[in-house]
Amino acid sequence: MAKRRLGGVQCFYPAPMVLIGAMVEGRANYATVGDCAIMGIRPAVVAISLGEAGFTIRGILEAKAFSINIPTTKQLPLVDYFGSVSGKDVDKSALVESTPGTLPGVPLLDACAVSLECRVIEECVVEHRHIFIAEIAEAHVDERFISETDGRLRMAALRELDPILYTLDNTYHSVGKPIGTGGEEAAKLVA
Amino acid sequence: MAKRRLGGVQCFYPAPMVLIGAMVEGRANYATVGDCAIMGIRPAVVAISLGEAGFTIRGILEAKAFSINIPTTKQLPLVDYFGSVSGKDVDKSALVESTPGTLPGVPLLDACAVSLECRVIEECVVEHRHIFIAEIAEAHVDERFISETDGRLRMAALRELDPILYTLDNTYHSVGKPIGTGGEEAAKLVA
Repeated sequence: MAKRRLGGVQCFYPAPMVLIGAMVEGRANYATVGDCAIMGIRPAVVAISLGEAGFTIRGILEAKAFSINIPTTKQLPLVDYFGSVSGKDVDKSALVESTPGTLPGVPLLDACAVSLECRVIEECVVEHRHIFIAEIAEAHVDERFISETDGRLRMAALRELDPILYTLDNTYHSVGKPIGTGGEEAAKLVA
Repeated sequence: MAKRRLGGVQCFYPAPMVLIGAMVEGRANYATVGDCAIMGIRPAVVAISLGEAGFTIRGILEAKAFSINIPTTKQLPLVDYFGSVSGKDVDKSALVESTPGTLPGVPLLDACAVSLECRVIEECVVEHRHIFIAEIAEAHVDERFISETDGRLRMAALRELDPILYTLDNTYHSVGKPIGTGGEEAAKLVA
């Protein structure tokens, strides 16, 4: 195929939308963030990126910890709203219920089925972006999304969690249908 | 809702599947990776994570650069296969066509509509995981996914690119339907 060079632009889809929680000026604040990813399973490591001018980052720099709260498509209006206003101007803690996490300074958003408490282990500044590498200290998951088989806990499948994806054309998407299982697809190629 | 504590486990969905390219032992190698994310738009920054025991990482540590190649769901068998075998055992360069990028040591996977050349700017080691923070030096995009309006280039929408998502239950998914536009959803909440 004929490829065209576009320079140093970002064209990388899709991003899972999450709500990053931190305590700022004594109240729980949540920022809608798409710059968030798994960086390893064992150990459980994540990376998030925030603008240095934001409100949430103040609490993270202080506590060296934050929460990742994973919303569902049903919560899209709230997610979009929390991404369009700053905690500097709006007291977001008045709009949602929070529970303190086990780490000091980390609020968990009650309405999200999955809340992950994260402890910062590395930081990296790139111009005005502040990237935090963090380990997951504690995962809080709604009972409805956990099942137990032979003493082993199992998380619900992705479609049950129904997360929100965001793309650089400013559009939100749901997750689509399952299209294959790891290990089985490769067999088709070899065949 | 009643949440249960699961400890420091990873329960964070979904991950976009990409093929990370590097030159190792003189040949192009591609690793299927889900630990990859946007860490900022301007500047265009990404983060990826690789196991230190892998093959691809050798080329990245040497060149301090790599490519992110974004496959579509039609390429799932290849993606799954490249994730199930190591370049130590299989010469992946014999299975796909590559083109050299503009950065030394960075191969671009011809069959992928989007290839991003990335220059490493920071590294972070967490146990056996090696996290690379990198800036996008050059984006190569298939002409079919670029349109021009009033002299401005526009990337295709997410569904046209048709990327692959992966989840921790070892299942691949496609992207679902658009569910909203940034800024408009918030208005529903305020209303």
